Amino acid sequence: MDILANQKSIRKEPTLKEEKRASFELLFSPKSVAIVGASRRKGSVGFSILKNMIDNYKGDLYAVNPKADEILGLKCYPTIKDIGKQVDLAVLILPSLAILAAFKECIDGGVKAVIVISAGFKETGKEGAALEKELAEMAQKNNIPLMGPNCLGLINTDPKVKLNASFAQRMPDEGNIAFLSQSGALCTAVLDYAKGENIGFSKFVSFGNKADIDELCFLEYLKDDPKTKAILMYVEDLVDGQAFIELAREITGEQENKKPIIAIKSGRTAQGAKAASSHTGSLAGSDSAYNAIFEQSGVIRAESLEEMFNLAIGLSSPKLPKGDRVAIVTNAGGPGIMATDACIGSGLQMPVLKPETQEELKKVLPPTANFSNPVDVIGDAFHDRYEHALRCVINDPNIDAILVILTPQAMTEIKETAQTIVDINKTTDKTIFACFMGAVDVLPGVKILEDNHIPQYRFPELAAKTLSAMVRFKKWGERSKTKVVMFKTDNAAARAIINEARQNGQRLLTVEQSLRVLQVYGFSMPVFHLAKSASEASKKAKEIGFPVAMKIVSPDIIHKLDVGGVKINLQNGKEVETEFQEMMKRVAASQPKAKVDGILIQAMGKKGREVILGMDNDPHFGPLIMFGLGGTFVEVFKDVTFRLAPIREASALGMIESIRAYSVLKGVRGQKPADIEAIKNSLLRLSQLSCELTDVVEIDINPLMVYDAGEGAHVIDARLILKS
Amino acid sequence: MDILANQKSIRKEPTLKEEKRASFELLFSPKSVAIVGASRRKGSVGFSILKNMIDNYKGDLYAVNPKADEILGLKCYPTIKDIGKQVDLAVLILPSLAILAAFKECIDGGVKAVIVISAGFKETGKEGAALEKELAEMAQKNNIPLMGPNCLGLINTDPKVKLNASFAQRMPDEGNIAFLSQSGALCTAVLDYAKGENIGFSKFVSFGNKADIDELCFLEYLKDDPKTKAILMYVEDLVDGQAFIELAREITGEQENKKPIIAIKSGRTAQGAKAASSHTGSLAGSDSAYNAIFEQSGVIRAESLEEMFNLAIGLSSPKLPKGDRVAIVTNAGGPGIMATDACIGSGLQMPVLKPETQEELKKVLPPTANFSNPVDVIGDAFHDRYEHALRCVINDPNIDAILVILTPQAMTEIKETAQTIVDINKTTDKTIFACFMGAVDVLPGVKILEDNHIPQYRFPELAAKTLSAMVRFKKWGERSKTKVVMFKTDNAAARAIINEARQNGQRLLTVEQSLRVLQVYGFSMPVFHLAKSASEASKKAKEIGFPVAMKIVSPDIIHKLDVGGVKINLQNGKEVETEFQEMMKRVAASQPKAKVDGILIQAMGKKGREVILGMDNDPHFGPLIMFGLGGTFVEVFKDVTFRLAPIREASALGMIESIRAYSVLKGVRGQKPADIEAIKNSLLRLSQLSCELTDVVEIDINPLMVYDAGEGAHVIDARLILKS
Repeated sequence: MDILANQKSIRKEPTLKEEKRASFELLFSPKSVAIVGASRRKGSVGFSILKNMIDNYKGDLYAVNPKADEILGLKCYPTIKDIGKQVDLAVLILPSLAILAAFKECIDGGVKAVIVISAGFKETGKEGAALEKELAEMAQKNNIPLMGPNCLGLINTDPKVKLNASFAQRMPDEGNIAFLSQSGALCTAVLDYAKGENIGFSKFVSFGNKADIDELCFLEYLKDDPKTKAILMYVEDLVDGQAFIELAREITGEQENKKPIIAIKSGRTAQGAKAASSHTGSLAGSDSAYNAIFEQSGVIRAESLEEMFNLAIGLSSPKLPKGDRVAIVTNAGGPGIMATDACIGSGLQMPVLKPETQEELKKVLPPTANFSNPVDVIGDAFHDRYEHALRCVINDPNIDAILVILTPQAMTEIKETAQTIVDINKTTDKTIFACFMGAVDVLPGVKILEDNHIPQYRFPELAAKTLSAMVRFKKWGERSKTKVVMFKTDNAAARAIINEARQNGQRLLTVEQSLRVLQVYGFSMPVFHLAKSASEASKKAKEIGFPVAMKIVSPDIIHKLDVGGVKINLQNGKEVETEFQEMMKRVAASQPKAKVDGILIQAMGKKGREVILGMDNDPHFGPLIMFGLGGTFVEVFKDVTFRLAPIREASALGMIESIRAYSVLKGVRGQKPADIEAIKNSLLRLSQLSCELTDVVEIDINPLMVYDAGEGAHVIDARLILKS
Repeated sequence: MDILANQKSIRKEPTLKEEKRASFELLFSPKSVAIVGASRRKGSVGFSILKNMIDNYKGDLYAVNPKADEILGLKCYPTIKDIGKQVDLAVLILPSLAILAAFKECIDGGVKAVIVISAGFKETGKEGAALEKELAEMAQKNNIPLMGPNCLGLINTDPKVKLNASFAQRMPDEGNIAFLSQSGALCTAVLDYAKGENIGFSKFVSFGNKADIDELCFLEYLKDDPKTKAILMYVEDLVDGQAFIELAREITGEQENKKPIIAIKSGRTAQGAKAASSHTGSLAGSDSAYNAIFEQSGVIRAESLEEMFNLAIGLSSPKLPKGDRVAIVTNAGGPGIMATDACIGSGLQMPVLKPETQEELKKVLPPTANFSNPVDVIGDAFHDRYEHALRCVINDPNIDAILVILTPQAMTEIKETAQTIVDINKTTDKTIFACFMGAVDVLPGVKILEDNHIPQYRFPELAAKTLSAMVRFKKWGERSKTKVVMFKTDNAAARAIINEARQNGQRLLTVEQSLRVLQVYGFSMPVFHLAKSASEASKKAKEIGFPVAMKIVSPDIIHKLDVGGVKINLQNGKEVETEFQEMMKRVAASQPKAKVDGILIQAMGKKGREVILGMDNDPHFGPLIMFGLGGTFVEVFKDVTFRLAPIREASALGMIESIRAYSVLKGVRGQKPADIEAIKNSLLRLSQLSCELTDVVEIDINPLMVYDAGEGAHVIDARLILKS
């Protein structure tokens, strides 16, 4: 079975089908909506949605309830068909067992798009899952985009539409952030939090069980939505890793209006993942796979809602900093130091201001002020001193972004200082962040800042972290774009080796078979021969040249070292001959039932820097490529990184550069750099192999011995495992 | 010069002198206060403090201002002496140049304690520093505790006193948290933040320049203060590391009413430290030293104000969890998963609930609920379902703490659920945390929780982090207490080696001298001899037994390897003789001017696990002991830890256990454990050496070769450097 094809089949709809796209847009901007299951019982979902619609919606609204004449002053129809007018969107709030019939009516009534709010589907077990499958098939057959089931609904704050097809307690303010959530209950907390923090939304979507349309459909829509500047996602699983990477890359780093995506993927820990699978009934991939997917698609992964919104406030603002050089202007020394720590700790630079800038500052600030960076305007500063300092700092060519810190001291002019920041912000294309510290007295200033879209944080640490994310996002958009490289390989030869192993009933390829497969895929390695007898071993060793290494060749032995099946540094034919006998004896004593093909005689390469390459087949997403430093402490420091195959050149380089031991590869203390190009090509070959030979589910290349730049890299040992 | 004595001299007053203690308490609870420099100018510091005092203070209040008859209805005296009654505390708000005279008047007028609010001292440069020194000497000579200068003042919320001797904009609510700050401006932000978050304080202190009394005096006072349950500190430097450790250990882990201390030490990064030194004019020690000090004293280091207060909310609450086993009760699946991730990620356990507990839960919760852990009571839960779930979970013996999560859904009874939590909390000694997610609709519930001292967090991540800190704090208080071990050593012999080196004009001890010093201090090592000629070398090698190692012995060569001054594995006398000549030639070619004492002939020990021990003399705090894993990647992974000398047995063990590579020492994959006891003793001996031989400012033991448990550890190479 081919994994790429397999991935295709996991994904129901790789992108929105052309014939569905127009209908999909009606989910957000319908001209007419029917609430099926509208209820007059206060507090019920059917009542709440109807009320939200009546209170907000600008289009034609119909209520469907066979048992009522009118609710909240709106006439009720017994069925959708009875409405007798075009209904763009139907929202179904009925017991799960009544949903299929209602959906059928929607089809018959010419409804274009449907939201199923009701729960009672996949999340409740087998029967629910069957019901959901039937629903999904009906939607797909009829090209009707279906959102849900088991969701809170959907909100579009566009004043021309004002659609609140949800049972949320409140209508959020208009804003430029879109929020997508796989959890409905979380949405209620997010809306309440956003209200308190004055955060608005462009679109707000609780997409539920994803029976038909999923996160990819919504991302594709939001990609072009002019009202959306940043996209937030809470997900418990992704339907298709590679499709997500392609689409998200386009949104975050390729298209003209690049939009940041900030995602929370819950179930990071094993126990969290278990809780998630009992919650949604879906098996998500490993957390390493999600990290890889987000890394490859430029998606910023947040660990908490708080972090997500803190990042969003900065990343949805119109001005990305041109670089990472920050100046701090503060009226308090302590917070200035804390902010400095936070900026440096977040990977930002804090250059000393130019002498000219410092001279300008001295003209107005008192002599006890600090003129370097952080600039301390001192506790008794009125707004005019802030203004002077800000103007000076903005003119400094060494500065890309300014963080203005204010503590509410006796002389502090909170509102005036906020207004000063707003005014100066209009005159510059540099990024200005504010940090008015406190929660009560500073509020009037905070309001002015928020109303004028100046990113404002209560604490400098949050501002620094966000600025740093903005710098990284900018760099991501500007990085050089690379493609997936395909090497010419004799695919058939590799398949032949695997087929042969299959016919032998092997799942584990021997070291000899493994090396041969890798050789076909263009990996370099020391010369090797399989010897079946002591004399053959000695003869082959002489041909290869001494010293040699000897390794047991068996499809039944996974850890050769543990059974005494590896010996290095043999110096002559005699030693080889003797060792052949002894190794055979040791292995037979340790694993008497193991089938043994012979002993591998391998040239001893020179010593280089050891790295590990690997592949694990994620059951949900397919082959995941691993790279890390080799040697004794691999398991201690877990200095490894993952990417979903196929990987691009830039990803391969990114893998190499992202491990902490990269400095060892670059060369420490006068050492020459290692052959990074050879590692990169090895990763790309491994990626290609993983995508092509889909029978292979696990690969370990340990070690890949890397030599100095220009001298290549050698596979010393390897192990391939086939699908069971 | 002796460093311990040196440390003593850094510390002005190791503890409060007995004769000063009674006066010190008057800072917080004076029966009468004089405001010297009271002003009628609104917005001025002299006005603000007087107003704060008038509005709050319960004792006798006097204003001193020679130019006014009365301010805010209070009679003004021209000088302190004119008051004619006992003044316990004087608060001075005058230009810095007028402070000395005013302080003199305080002495003459029998004032018991003084706060100097005014700035213009050490922080402004040399002249200010001289003024400050004079002020401090005057205070110390007269046994008058002096707080400041350059501070915001001091607040005691005790309703019997209600002292607000500060120019803060507001009087904080009463609470059980004490706050100490070296930054005055930060205090204004903290008070404003605390107001917004409904956090109260017992004492609130901006202690300024620490001319006389410092953080240690305040800690000693707060140690016994019955109103204070937790202590928060913002510091830019500490005056005395070892004194701080001793006192803070007593507060956090020794005394009966253990109190958590949470500290922010700003200037973490090099640039932050530079900003701090230009702010306070004081040179703080290295950040590694501060980490060591906090680690050794049980102080929790916070990275931000937000983290500090989040931790304080939990740590000041009366119930510490008995263990680390948490149950989550939630009405929302998504947040339940996020909370699970956060708990596991913070090092907490989330055990599966007992079958009996799950049975009990099933009696009331709907079938679609989750009965394991997290317990999901489902979105339509009223408060009674929370109540049932909470009662069940509390009775589970596998659970130590419960985190209750609420999202504001349509059916959610926010206030009733909060009240339920409050009621149940009264019936149990298990720790209950709440996480009502949101910022507006949830507020009525949050208020009920806060009024009843249930720790409440907006986000589960913050709650999990705090619970984890509480568990660690509990464990710290219960740990086995150990002492500083002193080994019997021939101190004089070690000093003789150092004196000899001194007389030779050496700062760098040769490898031979270094090994001899360590030998005196009881370190084990392979046999070695210093050979002055090739024939002596060969003779000594034969005595030692082959193979041997050879190392150049020179006080001028710091990196022996770089000059070809190390050779290992020499097999016979011939090889040694030849190598002697060659090494001498190589070294002479590479460093012709280096004085060479000869070549060290050293037995080759067997291979073990390599660790590094070291000592660096922190200019502010004295000897800092370092421990880490040795080998190639030391510099990449920086897997090292520090403690301030002298260290206790528990600290030595703590160092060993805290490095990430500890698993390697414990033994991975069937390997025997290393001789941890031998490492511990080596660390204790190193600590003793560092405290006794105070002429030594740097020690490197690299590697210490550690053998399997019971087989000891050998110093293979070492380097000592003397004070210049």
